[in-house]
Amino acid sequence: MIAGPIKNLIREFKKLPGVGEKTATRLAMHVLSSPRVNAEGLASALLEVKDKIRPCKNCFSMTESEICEICSSGRRDRGIICVVEDQVSLVSIENAGNFFGLYHVLGGRLSPIDGVGPGEITVAQLVKRVESGTVREVILATNPSVDGEATALYVKRALGSLNVKVTRIARGIPMGGDLEYADALTLGRALDGRSAY
Amino acid sequence: MIAGPIKNLIREFKKLPGVGEKTATRLAMHVLSSPRVNAEGLASALLEVKDKIRPCKNCFSMTESEICEICSSGRRDRGIICVVEDQVSLVSIENAGNFFGLYHVLGGRLSPIDGVGPGEITVAQLVKRVESGTVREVILATNPSVDGEATALYVKRALGSLNVKVTRIARGIPMGGDLEYADALTLGRALDGRSAY
Repeated sequence: MIAGPIKNLIREFKKLPGVGEKTATRLAMHVLSSPRVNAEGLASALLEVKDKIRPCKNCFSMTESEICEICSSGRRDRGIICVVEDQVSLVSIENAGNFFGLYHVLGGRLSPIDGVGPGEITVAQLVKRVESGTVREVILATNPSVDGEATALYVKRALGSLNVKVTRIARGIPMGGDLEYADALTLGRALDGRSAY
Repeated sequence: MIAGPIKNLIREFKKLPGVGEKTATRLAMHVLSSPRVNAEGLASALLEVKDKIRPCKNCFSMTESEICEICSSGRRDRGIICVVEDQVSLVSIENAGNFFGLYHVLGGRLSPIDGVGPGEITVAQLVKRVESGTVREVILATNPSVDGEATALYVKRALGSLNVKVTRIARGIPMGGDLEYADALTLGRALDGRSAY
C-alpha cells in the first residue's frame, strides 16, 4: 500500500552500504517531509560527483583535475609516499593532520576470494613512481586485516629491488583503548612493536 | 584536500537523519566507486518522489493520486479509522498486517516546544471525517511518548461530542521482551492495561 515512487526511493536507498529496510524507509519519509530543495541538492550532488570526479593520474586519489591537489601542492614532501587501500583511508589520514607526504591509492586490497589480484590494484603504477627516483620512503598504510596485511606484503616485495625504505604503520592498542578489551592478536602486535621510552 | 563535488555530496548526505560525518563520507565514497547508473537511480528516485507524491485528500497519507489506495480500496472497513502521527507509523501498522480499516495521518504531534499546535496537525479534518457519519471507532495510535500521549488526549477531546468509540493502542511489555529490562513506566502501563485471560 506504499506508492510506487516511495517504494522506488526506499529501494534505491537500500543499495547504499549499511542501509537496511528500516533505515531506507526512514530516509525516504524524511525526503517526503522535507523541502524539495533538499532532495534536489542531494540529487545534483550525486550526479556532479559522477560527472566531475576521476582518479588522479599520479596517485589515483579522487579529484576534479588531471593531477590531484595533494600531488600538485608545493608544500608536500615528495620523498614520502603513503600507500592506502582506498580514498576513505586517504581522507582519514589527511584528517589526522600529521602526514605531509604524497599518497598512492591502490584501489582495493588483494583478495583471492573476491577475485582481486595484483592486476586489479595499482601496484605496477606505484613501482613506476618509485623507480622515477625521488622517493625515499614508502609507508604501507593498508588496513591491518588479513587481506590488508597480505597486500602490504605484496607491495613490499614488488618494491624489493628498488632503493627505497619501506615501512608499515604501527598496529597496537588504540589511544584511549583498554588492554582488558584488546584482542590477543592486537595485544601481541602491541608487544612486538614496542619502542624505547 | 577533498575535491569540491565530494565535499558537497558529503554535506548533502549529512542532512539526512541519523547520518553524521563518518557515515556521510562512507556513503559518498561508495557512490564514487559504484557505477554511474546507481547514482542516477537514487537521484531520479529523489526527484520523482517530490514530483509525484502528495497527501491523500481524505487521510493525508502520501500517495500518487488524489485519494490514496487505502481510502479508495473496496476491501477496507470504512467504519474504523486508525489515527497515526506520520507516514512511518502508517507503514509500520500496514506491515504488521492485521489492521483493515482506514487511516488518518496527523502530520506530526502536538509539541509546544517545537511550536506545533493543533493548527499544524490535521485534527480538524479528522473531526470532519468522523462527523460525516460512517465511522464507528477511532483508534488513537500516536506514539507512547510524552508528546504522543498529549496528542492522543487532544484528539480524544476534539472527538468528545461525537457519537464515536475512541480507543488507544495497548502499551505494555513488547513481545519477546523481558520484564527485568522494562522501564517502570512501561511496566506500570502493562499492569494497568491487563486483560482477562
